[in-house]
Amino acid sequence: MQTKDIKAFGTTRANELLNEMTIQRRVLLPHDIEMEILFCGICHSDLHQVKNDFGGSNYPMVPGHEMVGRVTAIGNHVNKFKVGDLAGVGCIIDSCRECDYCAQDEEMFCKGEVLSFNSPDKHLGGSSYGGYSESYVADERYVLHVPENLDLAATAPLLCAGITVYSPFKHWNIGPGKKVGILGIGGLGHLAIKIAKAMGAHVVVFTTSPAKVEDAKRLGTDEAVLSSDAAQMAKYTDSLNLILDTVSANHDVNIYLNLLKADGSVVLVGLPTDAIPIGAFNVVKGRRSFSGSNIGGIAETQEMLDFCSKHNITADIELIKIQEINEAFHRLEKGDVHYRFVIDMASLKK
Amino acid sequence: MQTKDIKAFGTTRANELLNEMTIQRRVLLPHDIEMEILFCGICHSDLHQVKNDFGGSNYPMVPGHEMVGRVTAIGNHVNKFKVGDLAGVGCIIDSCRECDYCAQDEEMFCKGEVLSFNSPDKHLGGSSYGGYSESYVADERYVLHVPENLDLAATAPLLCAGITVYSPFKHWNIGPGKKVGILGIGGLGHLAIKIAKAMGAHVVVFTTSPAKVEDAKRLGTDEAVLSSDAAQMAKYTDSLNLILDTVSANHDVNIYLNLLKADGSVVLVGLPTDAIPIGAFNVVKGRRSFSGSNIGGIAETQEMLDFCSKHNITADIELIKIQEINEAFHRLEKGDVHYRFVIDMASLKK
Repeated sequence: MQTKDIKAFGTTRANELLNEMTIQRRVLLPHDIEMEILFCGICHSDLHQVKNDFGGSNYPMVPGHEMVGRVTAIGNHVNKFKVGDLAGVGCIIDSCRECDYCAQDEEMFCKGEVLSFNSPDKHLGGSSYGGYSESYVADERYVLHVPENLDLAATAPLLCAGITVYSPFKHWNIGPGKKVGILGIGGLGHLAIKIAKAMGAHVVVFTTSPAKVEDAKRLGTDEAVLSSDAAQMAKYTDSLNLILDTVSANHDVNIYLNLLKADGSVVLVGLPTDAIPIGAFNVVKGRRSFSGSNIGGIAETQEMLDFCSKHNITADIELIKIQEINEAFHRLEKGDVHYRFVIDMASLKK
Repeated sequence: MQTKDIKAFGTTRANELLNEMTIQRRVLLPHDIEMEILFCGICHSDLHQVKNDFGGSNYPMVPGHEMVGRVTAIGNHVNKFKVGDLAGVGCIIDSCRECDYCAQDEEMFCKGEVLSFNSPDKHLGGSSYGGYSESYVADERYVLHVPENLDLAATAPLLCAGITVYSPFKHWNIGPGKKVGILGIGGLGHLAIKIAKAMGAHVVVFTTSPAKVEDAKRLGTDEAVLSSDAAQMAKYTDSLNLILDTVSANHDVNIYLNLLKADGSVVLVGLPTDAIPIGAFNVVKGRRSFSGSNIGGIAETQEMLDFCSKHNITADIELIKIQEINEAFHRLEKGDVHYRFVIDMASLKK
């Protein structure tokens, strides 16, 4: 298969700094689009994969799965995009297209799901290379239309962080009359506040940090509670329909299960490394659930982008050059970012 | 308030044998019915409460919340029952009647819920006395109609064990086309097999005991799997819509979360004493849930009884005399019962 050399930033093994490298993209198949990557968000899972925190990392690795760009070429059978269109690629770039999950637009549950990096590349062999690169090639079925009215850099994080919080809100029917708790104000949590508010819910943020109480208010939350204040916390017993838990550090979920109304759920979108102990009474009482959620399907990702366009929602970002990636990873590891790093990919051309 | 002395079996403190005692029932209020108790099931939670395993036990205590009997007197304003009718009393005998939960027939979530024993008795003071007794008095709103076509002794366990498994099956929409796993074949599990089958689901039992594999098949399960057989277990990955977990011993739930399809739930109705560790990936992947459930509302309990009447479902029981209660508790503690003890309350008259 014909390929094209492009510039990228990646690493050849775990615990090595990222450096410029040359990778190959396939020449367009009939349903492929090629896009120049303008901006790529940095997700904590990029860092986890680079470090092989979850196992299963393949090297060389080019991370990046929050890409916004402009279409530069299209295959013969492409009909969703034309050259010059804005486009986005998130986590999923392929799936089996035949299973019940694919038929229901839930490609994230498909066993044949292919991710935008560190996933087997069935065309070129080896692993897929992500968005810390000049350009991307993908089947148009998995490429999103990016709204023209939003700041493009600040839109990039919607492709993963945005859909990760939007999808559970939709699945659990968040809207007017619903009270939503949000744990953790970071890349996911700050978008969760904006999206839940735009959906019409009453939003209560729980945080361990007094500084984040103020930040959460600025981001639009209705209430913000210091989780260390037991008297305050007790007031929220049996009051919330859903709690979105974006925390990846180990933490006690049981106190939050008890803030739920009957049939409520704590939905984990963070990934704590240790198993989370759940007391039996905390779910049996009130038919409550401890659940999880992970991104969303392609159609729902498009719906989320259109929703954010309508409500003028983007991420709060720090824009960096690709040459600053290792420092950004270092700061991300310490939680020192407000609230999402985005790489200005123009810097790769220099 | 006027009272009437009746015979009962109870205990005056934790870790004491049950003995015959005299208790008082209130004279009928306008909406009350009095019923002669014919049969009372023995639930493991009777034993837990007698032993104060969960704390909060009050003595003297008369256990029993699976009562089937015949109406012997009615208050002036009773219109659901007449003297001579069959009647049943389960776990709930009162609630606030004003909250959203009561309005939605979900009295089990009401903060003002009153249980049939060891719950504050607002009429007589002290605690409510349960069904190990000659008769019961309760507001007709919380009394069930017992079908005439079922064996009465074997119907008693439906009032708690039956609704405990029926309610989550209804809540999670179990029916034709759904695959249901059942963990633990005891008082709850054996009824779960019968009810899930009658609902039209495909039933897979998971058990640690080869003997229970055979029993589960006799009870009607479609498949029965030894959970110690890793190769067999692996075949069920991503295949079940719901797993009802009736096990009260400590056990690993994560292996069962991984047998669920996307959006599936492990629903706990047992009460393990230790917190249950849940790996983050096991819920995040496939938007799966670890949930709980506890009995059901009065209307749903009636629906369950009518369903069991239609499908001719009762519990497999061992009928005992009230004088054998301490031995029965001893055997129950060892799990030595197939599958529910029921007390023939005629024995109390001797």
